[in-house]
Amino acid sequence: MTQDVTNSDLQTGKPNGILPALDSVDWPVFEAGWVWMVGGGPGDPGLLTLHALNALQQADIIIYDALVDKALLSWAKPDAVIEYAGKRGGKPSPKQRDISLRLIELAQAGKRVLRLKGGDPFVFGRGGEEAQTLVQAGIKLRIIPGISAGIGGLAYAGIPVTHRDVNQSVTFLSGHDRTGLMPSALDWDALSKGSQVIVMYMAIKHMPDICEKLIAAGRDPHEPVAVVNNATRDDMQVLETTLVKAHEDITRSGIGAPAIVCIGRVALMRQCLDWMGQMQGVPPRNLDPLDVRSESETG
Amino acid sequence: MTQDVTNSDLQTGKPNGILPALDSVDWPVFEAGWVWMVGGGPGDPGLLTLHALNALQQADIIIYDALVDKALLSWAKPDAVIEYAGKRGGKPSPKQRDISLRLIELAQAGKRVLRLKGGDPFVFGRGGEEAQTLVQAGIKLRIIPGISAGIGGLAYAGIPVTHRDVNQSVTFLSGHDRTGLMPSALDWDALSKGSQVIVMYMAIKHMPDICEKLIAAGRDPHEPVAVVNNATRDDMQVLETTLVKAHEDITRSGIGAPAIVCIGRVALMRQCLDWMGQMQGVPPRNLDPLDVRSESETG
Repeated sequence: MTQDVTNSDLQTGKPNGILPALDSVDWPVFEAGWVWMVGGGPGDPGLLTLHALNALQQADIIIYDALVDKALLSWAKPDAVIEYAGKRGGKPSPKQRDISLRLIELAQAGKRVLRLKGGDPFVFGRGGEEAQTLVQAGIKLRIIPGISAGIGGLAYAGIPVTHRDVNQSVTFLSGHDRTGLMPSALDWDALSKGSQVIVMYMAIKHMPDICEKLIAAGRDPHEPVAVVNNATRDDMQVLETTLVKAHEDITRSGIGAPAIVCIGRVALMRQCLDWMGQMQGVPPRNLDPLDVRSESETG
Repeated sequence: MTQDVTNSDLQTGKPNGILPALDSVDWPVFEAGWVWMVGGGPGDPGLLTLHALNALQQADIIIYDALVDKALLSWAKPDAVIEYAGKRGGKPSPKQRDISLRLIELAQAGKRVLRLKGGDPFVFGRGGEEAQTLVQAGIKLRIIPGISAGIGGLAYAGIPVTHRDVNQSVTFLSGHDRTGLMPSALDWDALSKGSQVIVMYMAIKHMPDICEKLIAAGRDPHEPVAVVNNATRDDMQVLETTLVKAHEDITRSGIGAPAIVCIGRVALMRQCLDWMGQMQGVPPRNLDPLDVRSESETG
């Protein structure tokens, strides 16, 4: 069947245009004195959401983090003020409280304040804390989720975080806690037994300890591990290794932060689903990396 | 500082327009005979990504699932063919293999095939399997991640899936396995100990069993639980309950599928961060739901 189309100008005439008739949608109006907390996605500007784009087009000031792709900022209003809230070489990073206070100050001055965070603001991004501080100060707030690197970044590496022949659960964890150490509150023994697939953010620094703990807790030393650096960006790098070899391979390859680490058999799927490699002419290495008989497939 | 802006036409003249100068970006060209597997997000059309929009604008045929918001389809080409691959009342849902074969058939016929799935295609969406079948058939493939309801849907309910005072890990799980039963491969005892916050997809049906297992494994019966139905849609409903009361409250309220269930203290954050309620004039119920002293905050 063919659908009803009410937009008369869906076609732009440009073969590769992306100027759709989005005007038929009532896009939220960014009112003065509000803060919109926006997820910028993992890197590829094409993974930005329409809501985030709408926010960029209206914001008076954009406070952005280190992991935000600079290309996104080119979609801001020409007179928008762009302010960096991440670490700068040499200088210490602003304290979380200072960032929150800056957001409050700007909102109280009547600005449309866009707080742009890498990935999703509520996934290891301290967005919850920031938002809470804003609400406590009586600032009006909108949250715009983003694609998180732990899902979208791995997809660009050809790794589905779930596959029903491997896992009915996936655990996302942060490789360090608020002090920068390995999260002391994590029960690695239980994680090892309960989490069929583990996806780690900010884990490169503590990889030797983490792998050791997982193996000590009974995880197969030869379990597949993928490390994805600069996920979804043009300079994305992917290292395929195992729990027992991860530290050595990471050191030897020089792959570093920012990176997502995926532990589990789903990492093998890259051998078949590396669609970015295949676009560049690299044939799939293995059409059935999980060695599942197709006749077991059900509806 | 003010950024350099190279786009001359960033401003559309419309106060609420969302027609940015996206033409400066080299949007991927959807070539004939390819399948693009696209995440449609949790519901709110504004959570669609730019890549997904670009895909919709070029696809010859769109094969979509039950949980895809129909508004997205209005952004397709006027002559695009729209085909439904989900369950229809009375009729059984097409088998996964049938859907994959249909995608292959269309691609081999030279169509630009957009496979549109709710949420993210690689999060409990069988996207990995579908993609694998396509690669096995030699079909060229692109994956476009989407916002997953377990993250973005909860954000619309004012619940951050991580908060550094609560959790350094979050586990996403499917409430049923490929047979429709409770996932037998899940170690509920380990999950209970290892997963500080548990976010469940498709779990309404088995909630009594799941809650019972978690409590039996030592989880606090009074642990906060939020059930979010139709997350991010206009008719979103949120139920706040506890592990021990969840089944009774779900039954009494009549809240049903599709729903995301969040188990953990982060669910309390809704008392402060229900930004959608606040937009409608409902004041925050509690400015410090986790009862954390702010002076413990560090940078």
